[in-house]
Amino acid sequence: MSQYRVLIDANDEKGLVYKVSSVFYQNDMNILSNSEFVDKENNKFFMRSVVEGDITLEKLHKLISDIMPENANIDVIAPQDKNIIIMATKEMHALGDILIRHEAGELEANILAVISNYSDLESLVSRFNIPFVCISHVDLSREEHEDKILEHLTKFKAIDYIVLAKYMRVLTPQFVEVYEKKIINIHHSFLPAFIGANPYKQAHERGVKIIGATSHFVNNNLDEGPIIAQEVIHVDHAYGWRDMQRLGKDVEKVVLSRALKLALEDRIFVYANKTVIFQG
Amino acid sequence: MSQYRVLIDANDEKGLVYKVSSVFYQNDMNILSNSEFVDKENNKFFMRSVVEGDITLEKLHKLISDIMPENANIDVIAPQDKNIIIMATKEMHALGDILIRHEAGELEANILAVISNYSDLESLVSRFNIPFVCISHVDLSREEHEDKILEHLTKFKAIDYIVLAKYMRVLTPQFVEVYEKKIINIHHSFLPAFIGANPYKQAHERGVKIIGATSHFVNNNLDEGPIIAQEVIHVDHAYGWRDMQRLGKDVEKVVLSRALKLALEDRIFVYANKTVIFQG
Amino acid sequence: MSQYRVLIDANDEKGLVYKVSSVFYQNDMNILSNSEFVDKENNKFFMRSVVEGDITLEKLHKLISDIMPENANIDVIAPQDKNIIIMATKEMHALGDILIRHEAGELEANILAVISNYSDLESLVSRFNIPFVCISHVDLSREEHEDKILEHLTKFKAIDYIVLAKYMRVLTPQFVEVYEKKIINIHHSFLPAFIGANPYKQAHERGVKIIGATSHFVNNNLDEGPIIAQEVIHVDHAYGWRDMQRLGKDVEKVVLSRALKLALEDRIFVYANKTVIFQG
Amino acid sequence: MSQYRVLIDANDEKGLVYKVSSVFYQNDMNILSNSEFVDKENNKFFMRSVVEGDITLEKLHKLISDIMPENANIDVIAPQDKNIIIMATKEMHALGDILIRHEAGELEANILAVISNYSDLESLVSRFNIPFVCISHVDLSREEHEDKILEHLTKFKAIDYIVLAKYMRVLTPQFVEVYEKKIINIHHSFLPAFIGANPYKQAHERGVKIIGATSHFVNNNLDEGPIIAQEVIHVDHAYGWRDMQRLGKDVEKVVLSRALKLALEDRIFVYANKTVIFQG
Repeated sequence: MSQYRVLIDANDEKGLVYKVSSVFYQNDMNILSNSEFVDKENNKFFMRSVVEGDITLEKLHKLISDIMPENANIDVIAPQDKNIIIMATKEMHALGDILIRHEAGELEANILAVISNYSDLESLVSRFNIPFVCISHVDLSREEHEDKILEHLTKFKAIDYIVLAKYMRVLTPQFVEVYEKKIINIHHSFLPAFIGANPYKQAHERGVKIIGATSHFVNNNLDEGPIIAQEVIHVDHAYGWRDMQRLGKDVEKVVLSRALKLALEDRIFVYANKTVIFQG
Repeated sequence: MSQYRVLIDANDEKGLVYKVSSVFYQNDMNILSNSEFVDKENNKFFMRSVVEGDITLEKLHKLISDIMPENANIDVIAPQDKNIIIMATKEMHALGDILIRHEAGELEANILAVISNYSDLESLVSRFNIPFVCISHVDLSREEHEDKILEHLTKFKAIDYIVLAKYMRVLTPQFVEVYEKKIINIHHSFLPAFIGANPYKQAHERGVKIIGATSHFVNNNLDEGPIIAQEVIHVDHAYGWRDMQRLGKDVEKVVLSRALKLALEDRIFVYANKTVIFQG
Repeated sequence: MSQYRVLIDANDEKGLVYKVSSVFYQNDMNILSNSEFVDKENNKFFMRSVVEGDITLEKLHKLISDIMPENANIDVIAPQDKNIIIMATKEMHALGDILIRHEAGELEANILAVISNYSDLESLVSRFNIPFVCISHVDLSREEHEDKILEHLTKFKAIDYIVLAKYMRVLTPQFVEVYEKKIINIHHSFLPAFIGANPYKQAHERGVKIIGATSHFVNNNLDEGPIIAQEVIHVDHAYGWRDMQRLGKDVEKVVLSRALKLALEDRIFVYANKTVIFQG
Repeated sequence: MSQYRVLIDANDEKGLVYKVSSVFYQNDMNILSNSEFVDKENNKFFMRSVVEGDITLEKLHKLISDIMPENANIDVIAPQDKNIIIMATKEMHALGDILIRHEAGELEANILAVISNYSDLESLVSRFNIPFVCISHVDLSREEHEDKILEHLTKFKAIDYIVLAKYMRVLTPQFVEVYEKKIINIHHSFLPAFIGANPYKQAHERGVKIIGATSHFVNNNLDEGPIIAQEVIHVDHAYGWRDMQRLGKDVEKVVLSRALKLALEDRIFVYANKTVIFQG
């Protein structure tokens, strides 16, 4: 008995659920969970099923492909640890939370390496027997720096996700294109956000009573990629901007780990600069 | 084109989704939304579909019944305003919230009457052109009082739900049995709760930092019926028990209105003293 | 024994607490609650005390004024219902929540009138024996329309607060100036916000996972006044923009009522386009 | 210039704020923050001030003691890292969160040692250069086991707090007495709670829609000590009890770290089995 996650998105039309479920039924498969969503506005159908049965991944994929319309995207995935790269700069909270979850066996992931433009985090990372790679940006153009990172990344056979755990540099469109829909960022604000440097200082000056954080896929518009998860925390006048920043870290790490978990469990569809996420 | 909500629960077995969706497909129906859940532990399958097509309710019900196993419960519902009775005592917050929502057209409901054991709320209710019925419990046994209420309720052809909007009397098993799975209560606590009189005073004495409220169906164990919705609010040492009670009212009305809305939209399955609720 | 709320803000300097508390002590007054805050950045001191004693308001004010620095703002307030005007347009949820709270005796307020540019809400308001004034904006310039409202407002001796309960017109700087720090608005977003028409539609297009609402004092920059309260609610891909709008209403009414209550209890200081709020 | 945290609790009487602030004023001290609370019911006064000035701790303590009533408890504390012991069993999430925060410099604490009745956590702890002490309970009575722990603890000069980061054994009254008001626990529920083994399983069976966690000081009634912090998270029918347990871990670590931080910053008063906590 093998278990598979089946993810399908297609233009909506009658009979899609019927056709997919007929494949499962005719091959004597159990449906462990099943979620569908139709975006009427964009006429898009989304379905995620977790099924088990005595069938190969290839055969299941073929049977579904045969019956689905041409325009459908079909993923059949056997659950296994995904390969991830973490990129960070100097801050420890988001990275540390992932390292501890990984150590506790909570994440379906192999951490291939942590890459940073500084060496500050080396001491922490190396304790977890995870390769730490410092690629300094000093005296390099943005492109030169990224080329060195990309070169290093080619050493790894397959990278499922790159997690920006407070990586404080903007990635170029060239870099993002290579890892489209695979780069997960944590943004220190809900969106729309205070634009520019030090959003906590801006939030404090504006006198907000709530601060938040957003995890999203990175696309070529800075901080504008498809949102995966958001969370907030209440503050009041007694919080200076440094207090907000400190509290914000707690929200950031929670939101990033939540988003990463959703990605590792193949729960996220990305389309129209948005996400459909099946939690059930 | 008619729209229907189809609710099915059954012992889980292979092919249930396939069979139901085949009925929709073969009758050229659109699936507007579709949710399933399998409780592995209890081997129970739940499905709620919103569909539209050129078919009568009776025929759709028959077609699904023909193809489903004997043990299945099948509901096919044409969306329309449900008939509800509100029972209250003296407090205005939960009742008032429902009245305003009803007035604003937010609820799929006709309020047939508000019944109270006091006359305090008559002035408010009558302004909304809703019948107010005062049935005093003074000098009556619990059974005599309920008999008078039950007698009044028989005047109404069909009652879909009875909403206890801070009705401060315990209902007898005899009463509850008549309206099984139809009585929605708001409890001034999350559950498990401080037992007995004045839970806010107890919560205050215990020094809790969170208070909450629970909406649930009423069964024959007081405060022990299937939970529909819960919400909480943070408090601190500066809140006396009366402050907690006041804040608690805000949570109570939110939770009760949320639960009522879920019920009116036929989103709730009840089984094993729990609920399965499809929000999507 | 009389009870007073004493509100003081001043440039921070040593001895302010000592000096104020010496007045209370030397006049044999009880301190029921006492809150202070110092904004180091702006060197500003804020203090709110609730005290009781055998002394007139005037004498207490004078004693404190004598001992405080020249730059201090001193308010001594005897708790009593404040006079408020509600302005609304067509939507019922925020107004209705205030009306029910007022009816239930939860608000320290007299509602002098509800003013609207449409007549839709007249039926609801009149049931609560509150004057409803329809001042249509049709065929009037913004200034002409506001002049008619201002003229009507002059009929009332003292207006403590004007509550914009989904009043959908932008007020001119001239109007705002007349009621500086007295106009409380509810904004259908947290701030910073999606700018322009239909923020819920924009939020939906952006694929946000949280929506919120903000209550703030109105100043001459639209949606940019000092924030009083904010709240959020989680959404997901299954919520269309109308669902978000409907859920948003629940947040809006909660936030506006919370802000109004804080204002009525004299808990808010406004400065530097921010608020200091003592909840304790 | 030295900075001090001054904590005072006393039976309430007139003039307490005046007297304390007079000490500050006459010694030319700055008040950086100041919070007071009066529990009318118990007639208890609480005050926490952060002050700075050119004065020794001993002198400041003496001046305040001289002027305060006999019954007052007075603490004058110079901010410095506190000495803490962490006790854990096998689970990594709560401990890991504290270790990362400590490593990141977020905690005002020296971690003297981590003590466990198993060796599972040794690998993690030792990476952080923190002594790990395994004191097995196998073949020992509860008292014998605790004696060994107590003996080990006597090696440390001063222990400010013992943090039970998922230490899964019940402490005896004898142990608790030694470290009264110094032991901070995390409980996997809000309180009141499902009693007994596996509360998540019970919560799941009850069909709750919210789960939570509570951090509290340990007293001699199991899970009944003064509450410091509580938090909750929403769940639904799709969460099995293991899912609830996993989600619960996220809440547990957040709540425990929050409580620890409050303790380390001397923000907590304990009385009447409750806490007064000044966050400002």
